[in-house]
Amino acid sequence: MEDPAPRSGSSSFVWLVGASQVVGLASVVLTGVWMGHYRGGFAWDGSAQEFNLHPLCMVLGLVFLQGDAILVYRIFRNEPKRNVKMLHGIIHLLALILSIIGFVAVFDFHRAAKIPNMYSLHSWCGMATLILFCVQWVMGLMFFLFPVASSWLRAAYLPVHVFCGLVLLVMAIGSCLLGITEKLLFSIMPTYSAFVSEGVLANTLGILLICFGVLLSFLITREEYRRPPNPEEEALSVHFKTLTEGGSPSSP
Amino acid sequence: MEDPAPRSGSSSFVWLVGASQVVGLASVVLTGVWMGHYRGGFAWDGSAQEFNLHPLCMVLGLVFLQGDAILVYRIFRNEPKRNVKMLHGIIHLLALILSIIGFVAVFDFHRAAKIPNMYSLHSWCGMATLILFCVQWVMGLMFFLFPVASSWLRAAYLPVHVFCGLVLLVMAIGSCLLGITEKLLFSIMPTYSAFVSEGVLANTLGILLICFGVLLSFLITREEYRRPPNPEEEALSVHFKTLTEGGSPSSP
Repeated sequence: MEDPAPRSGSSSFVWLVGASQVVGLASVVLTGVWMGHYRGGFAWDGSAQEFNLHPLCMVLGLVFLQGDAILVYRIFRNEPKRNVKMLHGIIHLLALILSIIGFVAVFDFHRAAKIPNMYSLHSWCGMATLILFCVQWVMGLMFFLFPVASSWLRAAYLPVHVFCGLVLLVMAIGSCLLGITEKLLFSIMPTYSAFVSEGVLANTLGILLICFGVLLSFLITREEYRRPPNPEEEALSVHFKTLTEGGSPSSP
Repeated sequence: MEDPAPRSGSSSFVWLVGASQVVGLASVVLTGVWMGHYRGGFAWDGSAQEFNLHPLCMVLGLVFLQGDAILVYRIFRNEPKRNVKMLHGIIHLLALILSIIGFVAVFDFHRAAKIPNMYSLHSWCGMATLILFCVQWVMGLMFFLFPVASSWLRAAYLPVHVFCGLVLLVMAIGSCLLGITEKLLFSIMPTYSAFVSEGVLANTLGILLICFGVLLSFLITREEYRRPPNPEEEALSVHFKTLTEGGSPSSP
């Protein structure tokens, strides 16, 4: 099958995707620099260095990878849908694994340092985001990879899945911003107002995360960047059998 | 002109709008209770009581009113567009006035208490939100109320205006969550982890603000809740003359 003709907005699309990746990777690097240079590096021993894995895993997993898992539907909008769907699920799985490591790191650190859990707004938002992210992943798996739902139910669920995906990305970014503020006030409250470099670096990280969210939201919601309709593809089942074996669907 | 026939999803629409208003008003009330009961009430004398006006004005203006200003396009989707447009602009103006009062309150308090300005992530996000909100309001006024732009330019700008409006609402909510975290850590850091009532109340306020944002985003982005196309209306100018005098447009 030949590729469809390029559509309008392709030039801006390339630049916007490029910008989103630069901003996303810069966020991950800044988190690494903050935790690695200013907060003493990384370890897995219940110390503050174990805590430092928490921000890195959340920014890399729950923000950057979650964002890119959504973006593959736009970047590869002219590729076969089942491949893109598999890629979407795999990147989300990586994001989920990293997020769980990040969550274990902070709970482990709290346990060792005898710090109470789940009292702050950051922890409430972060936990809600992770739980809903798991629910969304399992629902996506059941509806779009395994033959659980009818095609009518799948079609009805799709816009909800897309909406919830974007909400979860925004919630993840919001939770990161709360985490940045919490960490700064716990660590450098007396000097934060003097514009010390750690504070400025962490604030800049927050602004980059917002830019990443805005760029992703724009790319995902613009009509002209959507996957072009493909009647041949629509007729194919999204059943697991088709996806794994590449065979014919047993039902439309 | 007769009203168009009710469309599908009307029942859920009413419930969702109702829920958004309950959640939005509950957020405003909780902010009032937090500042009024736990933080000593309100004043305009450079004291901490003047600061207390800041959260109340921002939640009421930049979140609740900004959200409702957007929502009028869905609630009154069968009413004449020019009336809805005026209402949209007027509620936004109220939101802008309240936001400016809220900003003056915090800068006034900082000046009196000799606290530096603009060093925190909350202040960076909040200031960016207010500046962009002003830009968006002026652009909306120029493009859609005054005859500055051609109808081609207006049509091209409309989706950007809609996207930026939703981004600004989310940024306002994010800035509020950062403000909640900052205020709690400045005021009750030693007892926050013991789940004191002030901390739980403020966290609940944060969750309600997120719920408000999610409900508004859903209501605004769902295709079935959009304003039905009206060719008669489309042909009418959106020029200021038409809006104020109700006369015929001078150009299409």
